[in-house]
Amino acid sequence: MENNRYYGIDVGGTSVKIGLFQGQTLLEKWSVPTDTSADGANILPDIIRSLPGPAAGAALAVPGAVLPDGTVNRCVNLGWGVCRPTDEFTARTGIPCRVLNDANAAALAEQRLGGGQGYESILLLTLGTGVGSGIVLDGRLLVGARGTAGELGHLCLDPQDAAAACTCGHKGCLEQYASATGICRLAAQAGIPGLSCKQIMDGAAGGDARLEAVVDTACDALGRGIASACAIIDPEAVVLGGGVAQAGEYLRQKVQDAFERYAFHACLGTRILLATLGGDAGICGAALYAMDGGR
Amino acid sequence: MENNRYYGIDVGGTSVKIGLFQGQTLLEKWSVPTDTSADGANILPDIIRSLPGPAAGAALAVPGAVLPDGTVNRCVNLGWGVCRPTDEFTARTGIPCRVLNDANAAALAEQRLGGGQGYESILLLTLGTGVGSGIVLDGRLLVGARGTAGELGHLCLDPQDAAAACTCGHKGCLEQYASATGICRLAAQAGIPGLSCKQIMDGAAGGDARLEAVVDTACDALGRGIASACAIIDPEAVVLGGGVAQAGEYLRQKVQDAFERYAFHACLGTRILLATLGGDAGICGAALYAMDGGR
Repeated sequence: MENNRYYGIDVGGTSVKIGLFQGQTLLEKWSVPTDTSADGANILPDIIRSLPGPAAGAALAVPGAVLPDGTVNRCVNLGWGVCRPTDEFTARTGIPCRVLNDANAAALAEQRLGGGQGYESILLLTLGTGVGSGIVLDGRLLVGARGTAGELGHLCLDPQDAAAACTCGHKGCLEQYASATGICRLAAQAGIPGLSCKQIMDGAAGGDARLEAVVDTACDALGRGIASACAIIDPEAVVLGGGVAQAGEYLRQKVQDAFERYAFHACLGTRILLATLGGDAGICGAALYAMDGGR
Repeated sequence: MENNRYYGIDVGGTSVKIGLFQGQTLLEKWSVPTDTSADGANILPDIIRSLPGPAAGAALAVPGAVLPDGTVNRCVNLGWGVCRPTDEFTARTGIPCRVLNDANAAALAEQRLGGGQGYESILLLTLGTGVGSGIVLDGRLLVGARGTAGELGHLCLDPQDAAAACTCGHKGCLEQYASATGICRLAAQAGIPGLSCKQIMDGAAGGDARLEAVVDTACDALGRGIASACAIIDPEAVVLGGGVAQAGEYLRQKVQDAFERYAFHACLGTRILLATLGGDAGICGAALYAMDGGR
């Protein structure tokens, strides 16, 4: 019975989303709060207590770098340092377990089941509090030598922009322009403080010229970052997800226009698409990764 | 006898270099002039006339984009439009033939036999008249959906830099700072016109402060471009080749320093290395590609 049941587990800083899948079908989903006390030592036990029974496999999607051998290299938002959560998970449950970066999980899910369906190679950008990204090439995740492939949020667009100081220690990273946080910063810088990213996007789409100029700056940065990535990996399609992308076609068209301003001519055919899986991308991608064996 | 003999053919704008390999051993090499008259229609017949006999396979390394299906999408320097030179080559010789981009051939050669030996994933930069680049991930070439993966020369570093107008139609491409042409341009812009790139590099290494400032500008651009690529593909090593890289350790150290100024912290361990195959990289890479079957 459990032979084709898999757990996809998306470990976030506030809550852990868990999905039970039979093949690619989501049977049920639930969440547990993320207890970051004691260096996150309770997170795995809390997850495991919530599981309804055995399964053929599981995977954890985590907000941090994952080395190719499955070692997690710090998840600041969980309190985890360098660790191997899959070993503990399997020891406590008997369920084989894999681990991957959460943006990579979302990329895999959107490529197989979401906005990137039908394309073998995609770049996914998750535009949320930060800018996450994941790359699928020929149907396989690109993890990188140190587990940091697809860190497009830290592409340096303008090393001189002191107003765009990034948490990574550099200046002018894409994340400082194109995340929800970055868009609010750009608005404040333009003399319009105190608005949420959604208010800025809605106001811009509703015709407020000052807010539209803010959104245009963000989309220009996104288009340039995507053009850079396409000159390097040349994917078939680019998929935009995360809270900022809920602005939908309004955002997509602006990003497409900006991409075309910067793209190397041979890359102009690259499709810019919207993600479709929303908040389920992490659990779907983790479950697919659990099913995938070597991928 | 011909069962493990392969031709590696590097088709340049001035001459075609041809190597006959037995396994990975170069038995002999020669060249024929590139006749670009009549839209390059004589290039293949000239090559074929020079071949000493049958072989198990061959590959053409060409200066243009090659689609995943083997269609060449224009080689301006050869006079070729959209074409399938491998079909003609095989029809005339009976030798199975593949085709790949010349920078990709060099990347494959340096990863297997040259400066990147021992690493499964590398980014190669060829710093010559332009900036070519190729990417090997997990021992396989990354070709891209449109054959334009690894176009690092057209990474946009500064879209406002009108002095760095690129042949691709954009401004501020890496190639405009880090190619031999770009370095000469930077020197002229600094009030030192009329020097060759080699003279600039030699003068800088010899202690001329004004020339060293020019080289530092070029290396800063290279370091930033490499940092961007590493945030996207996270290779184990980056290999610098081409005429500019003949400055050797002097250049390598400056690029490493610049890379470390811009790199995402998790990528700081990436090795910056020098290419070792020189002008043979193209024929070696083509021969390896011919031997490789599916790769």
